[in-house]
Amino acid sequence: MREVYLDHYAASPIPEEVREAMLPFLDVHFGNPSSLHSWGDDARMALEESRAKVADLIGANPEEIIFTSNGTEANNLAIKGMVAGSRRKGKRIVISAIEHFSVMNAAMSLEKKGYELVTVPVDEYGLVDLDELKGVLDDETVLLSVMTANGEIGSIEPISEIAAMAAERGIPFHTDAVAAAGHIAIDVAALGVQAMSIASDEMYGPKGAGALWIKKGVRLMPLLDGGVQEGGRRGGTENMPAIVGMSAAAQLAKERMPERSQHLSGLRDALIAKLPQRLEHIYLTGHPKERLPWNASFVVEFIEGEGMLLFLDGQSVAVSSGSACTSRALKGSHVLSACGIAAEKAQGSILFSFGPENNLEDVEYVLDVFPPIVERLRQMSPLYAKFIKERG
Amino acid sequence: MREVYLDHYAASPIPEEVREAMLPFLDVHFGNPSSLHSWGDDARMALEESRAKVADLIGANPEEIIFTSNGTEANNLAIKGMVAGSRRKGKRIVISAIEHFSVMNAAMSLEKKGYELVTVPVDEYGLVDLDELKGVLDDETVLLSVMTANGEIGSIEPISEIAAMAAERGIPFHTDAVAAAGHIAIDVAALGVQAMSIASDEMYGPKGAGALWIKKGVRLMPLLDGGVQEGGRRGGTENMPAIVGMSAAAQLAKERMPERSQHLSGLRDALIAKLPQRLEHIYLTGHPKERLPWNASFVVEFIEGEGMLLFLDGQSVAVSSGSACTSRALKGSHVLSACGIAAEKAQGSILFSFGPENNLEDVEYVLDVFPPIVERLRQMSPLYAKFIKERG
Repeated sequence: MREVYLDHYAASPIPEEVREAMLPFLDVHFGNPSSLHSWGDDARMALEESRAKVADLIGANPEEIIFTSNGTEANNLAIKGMVAGSRRKGKRIVISAIEHFSVMNAAMSLEKKGYELVTVPVDEYGLVDLDELKGVLDDETVLLSVMTANGEIGSIEPISEIAAMAAERGIPFHTDAVAAAGHIAIDVAALGVQAMSIASDEMYGPKGAGALWIKKGVRLMPLLDGGVQEGGRRGGTENMPAIVGMSAAAQLAKERMPERSQHLSGLRDALIAKLPQRLEHIYLTGHPKERLPWNASFVVEFIEGEGMLLFLDGQSVAVSSGSACTSRALKGSHVLSACGIAAEKAQGSILFSFGPENNLEDVEYVLDVFPPIVERLRQMSPLYAKFIKERG
Repeated sequence: MREVYLDHYAASPIPEEVREAMLPFLDVHFGNPSSLHSWGDDARMALEESRAKVADLIGANPEEIIFTSNGTEANNLAIKGMVAGSRRKGKRIVISAIEHFSVMNAAMSLEKKGYELVTVPVDEYGLVDLDELKGVLDDETVLLSVMTANGEIGSIEPISEIAAMAAERGIPFHTDAVAAAGHIAIDVAALGVQAMSIASDEMYGPKGAGALWIKKGVRLMPLLDGGVQEGGRRGGTENMPAIVGMSAAAQLAKERMPERSQHLSGLRDALIAKLPQRLEHIYLTGHPKERLPWNASFVVEFIEGEGMLLFLDGQSVAVSSGSACTSRALKGSHVLSACGIAAEKAQGSILFSFGPENNLEDVEYVLDVFPPIVERLRQMSPLYAKFIKERG
């Protein structure tokens, strides 16, 4: 049976180039960058080369990159570390309603400690309501965090405009670019942000590495206290194989961005165009145009979502219902809810996340196997029975 | 030229078995354990198998293991997470004077937030003063943290006795076993502790994985807020290659502990016995008997420490002056200071940390090349000139 993996938002295989870059750091170049001898020198040089490559992807200065273990750690470091480091008197933290759990839950942990958390609504496409945002940014605000793009629904936020609003009031602005970096062109200076989180595994790099870029002069308290690694801003021995792998992935992402983007958005657009032709009561979530190239997310009505995933897995098609981070929690998505999608409908959410190894035959395969699965599930669905009855 | 790597406390090459266990998780088994499809199932099974192997090394229940990115994160999670989770009314945190930077600095970050940090002294061998400890443990104490063994000087602490003291007052007791786990037999139940940190790279596993064991029922707040990974106690996509590698290393460590211990302690004891025969004014630091098998640490008098490392590197011998985590900070070691070694003497600290691939010829090589280096450095040392002059 054909295997069609369309869950790259959850995990991706790494390109051969990335793997080859990493392997020597498992054995030959096993040194610790902090060591004062040749083995350490080798590792330290590789660490700084990696930092430069990762910085280059987002137009940053290498010394402003702090390596972390993943995107979640980068987001936690940004939210907790920037708030703890703030010299402002206020207690207000502003985030959007569709942030990733790592931003949202980090901010909520600060709310429990006495900070005021303000969540700015989004429109039906998941774009932040700029009027609402403008209304809540004040001189008491210590941090604003709005994601560059949302991985569940693909929508790309107007980060430059938001940054200009934050700048007017001198509010430090962090953006979670984990789902976006490596897929759309990003330049931290042009965007006007003060901090950005990125992750290796969302740009076809290995698991185990992420990074926080934070502009020189912006105060940050460490989350992992320890040694003097990463300029004292993140203790712990550096995960060299993963960091080197991330840097190789960042370099490839930059070099191949135009061709990858064209390839992925071609697959995305084919699925978005054809799936509704084969299947009734399905609609796209997220923005129709301002959208990550790899993301095709839908709501399939009158259905229980988990069933789709399991039946598709039976056909060797891997997809997800949204974020892998809470798939096991079986809770409704706060992102779809923020877009005004009722809990009942959001149950039928499905995310196809494409990767470089996918092709149009994969799309055709999905177009063949998916509609019968949905129809079968609908036959068992009380929601669908009710709909049919009411339609008469 | 012979290359002699004796800095395994900073970093180690990984055995072929560990490497082979990891590799498939870079590409073939690239899934995310949270995903609800076959790729995710593979990863989830591997994650839970890894958890069982790591638990087995320290006699723990698998569900009590939380994977982290390294030992520093495990220590930060323990210190900050257990204190934040504590239901006790008090504000006292007790640690030993020779804790690793990640425990010490995490505790100091809490001190800045209003906790009372009490540091218990150690004797000349680095063993915690049990009378002093008994005197400071009170009903206000929310956490006690004393390391299982110190990596800089090798001393093994009397953890069972300390645990009994803590238990008398119902104080949660965390022990940092990063330097010890995989090298000496550890059983969390027999020790009577409530939490233990361990790290992959200190047991010949890959960088990028560590674990906190925390006894069921002991409250812990997460450090990395995010998804539901690790039972909601540590968000972020699991670093599967490193976790699988850590578990393979843990399994090997358990199987080979007797032979490795005999081999390493043989090398250690040969160096400890012979080096003072070849070199004047050198003495062992740490406990002469209660000592990690891989650790031979000394103070060489009348010398500047960094010179030894650089000249040894010139002879292709890799060693360190103590902890790699602060080698670049060029500060005096708080561990040696706590043992009563004056800053002037502590400057001449040197740590030989052996690994499985070392042999007696490596020891002989060090015995040949090291004394001439020290003598050469002493010829340039004002301290030595002063000593010679005073001796007359």
